[in-house]
Amino acid sequence: MADLPATDRRPGGRTARVRARVLDAVRAELARGGHDALTVEGVATRAGVHRATVYRRWRDVGGLIVDVIDAAGEIDWQPPDTGSLLGDLTELNRQIQQSLVERPSLALALMAASFHSEQAARAQTRLWADRYAQSEVLVARATGRGELPAGTDARALLIAATAPVYHELVLLRTGPDPAVPARAAQAAVLAAAAGAFAHPELPA
Amino acid sequence: MADLPATDRRPGGRTARVRARVLDAVRAELARGGHDALTVEGVATRAGVHRATVYRRWRDVGGLIVDVIDAAGEIDWQPPDTGSLLGDLTELNRQIQQSLVERPSLALALMAASFHSEQAARAQTRLWADRYAQSEVLVARATGRGELPAGTDARALLIAATAPVYHELVLLRTGPDPAVPARAAQAAVLAAAAGAFAHPELPA
Repeated sequence: MADLPATDRRPGGRTARVRARVLDAVRAELARGGHDALTVEGVATRAGVHRATVYRRWRDVGGLIVDVIDAAGEIDWQPPDTGSLLGDLTELNRQIQQSLVERPSLALALMAASFHSEQAARAQTRLWADRYAQSEVLVARATGRGELPAGTDARALLIAATAPVYHELVLLRTGPDPAVPARAAQAAVLAAAAGAFAHPELPA
Repeated sequence: MADLPATDRRPGGRTARVRARVLDAVRAELARGGHDALTVEGVATRAGVHRATVYRRWRDVGGLIVDVIDAAGEIDWQPPDTGSLLGDLTELNRQIQQSLVERPSLALALMAASFHSEQAARAQTRLWADRYAQSEVLVARATGRGELPAGTDARALLIAATAPVYHELVLLRTGPDPAVPARAAQAAVLAAAAGAFAHPELPA
């Protein structure tokens, strides 16, 4: 990728450049004032783009947020590959914790936005479903290495490993605890090894 | 309690009755339109109370939400006591799931509100801290029955057991899955039995 000229990495030329400028502006405005302070006018001014362009393409604040979330889904994110399930889940949790404790946190601003807008909530749900699906490879690799019983429910294991990180920082709003990523990962690995996420029997 | 006349159960007489009517109205308005539609005028009208009374005592929408959250903390909630840690955590998770899937969900509306208002966020954090502290008795009882290693970090275990229920329903917005309360409880119990929540050594 590093060899390609910038124009090739942004197919669409001017349209894509306008999108990149507008989405950068949305992220900056969200970071500055949160969802409540986001306006099409503020975004257009910051992006140096005519308001009519923003209205025509994104329609309203909800449309802008959805596109920021969709753009996050277009990033070529790869799940960690450290050589062990515990290492992979700990690193995944560290990335999640980092995204939630940085100030300003775009991740937190998007979650807040998804509480107001059904459209933003759907985009966020899609992005999360994609990221958890991508991360299932961690579980497949661990099963291949013999670290996990065959038939482990990958999604249930990933949710158990990561949920405490979100719960502490998004809902309980406790301060960032550097022990949480590894502890939550460790608990999920021990539970999985004991068969906690074995796929349930099919209904009779 | 059932023997006491109603006036004794609501110390403060008229003031307490006005509070009860106003908080009932806040819950009904939140349920109807969510935080974005909540107004002091709407609450006063629904409660049949003069607006000036609401402004004087609660000041604004943020004050009303904080008082609804504080009132939830005054309820005489008791953590489950089923005779086993797995039973207790499963029942706790069922209660949490129920509060999040009922429509309208006051619990979800209060979480949404706490994303806008620092004051509401602090009240919510206090309520949650209280509920998790109250629930530590589950872990103490299980340790007494020999179900858990001594020195288990009760809070970490409770967070691991309950976080997946919140994560699925509040953030990932997956449909209610009747298997989640028991599965999340079971995973936490297996992890705890394997020593996942042993108190860390004191720093050297």
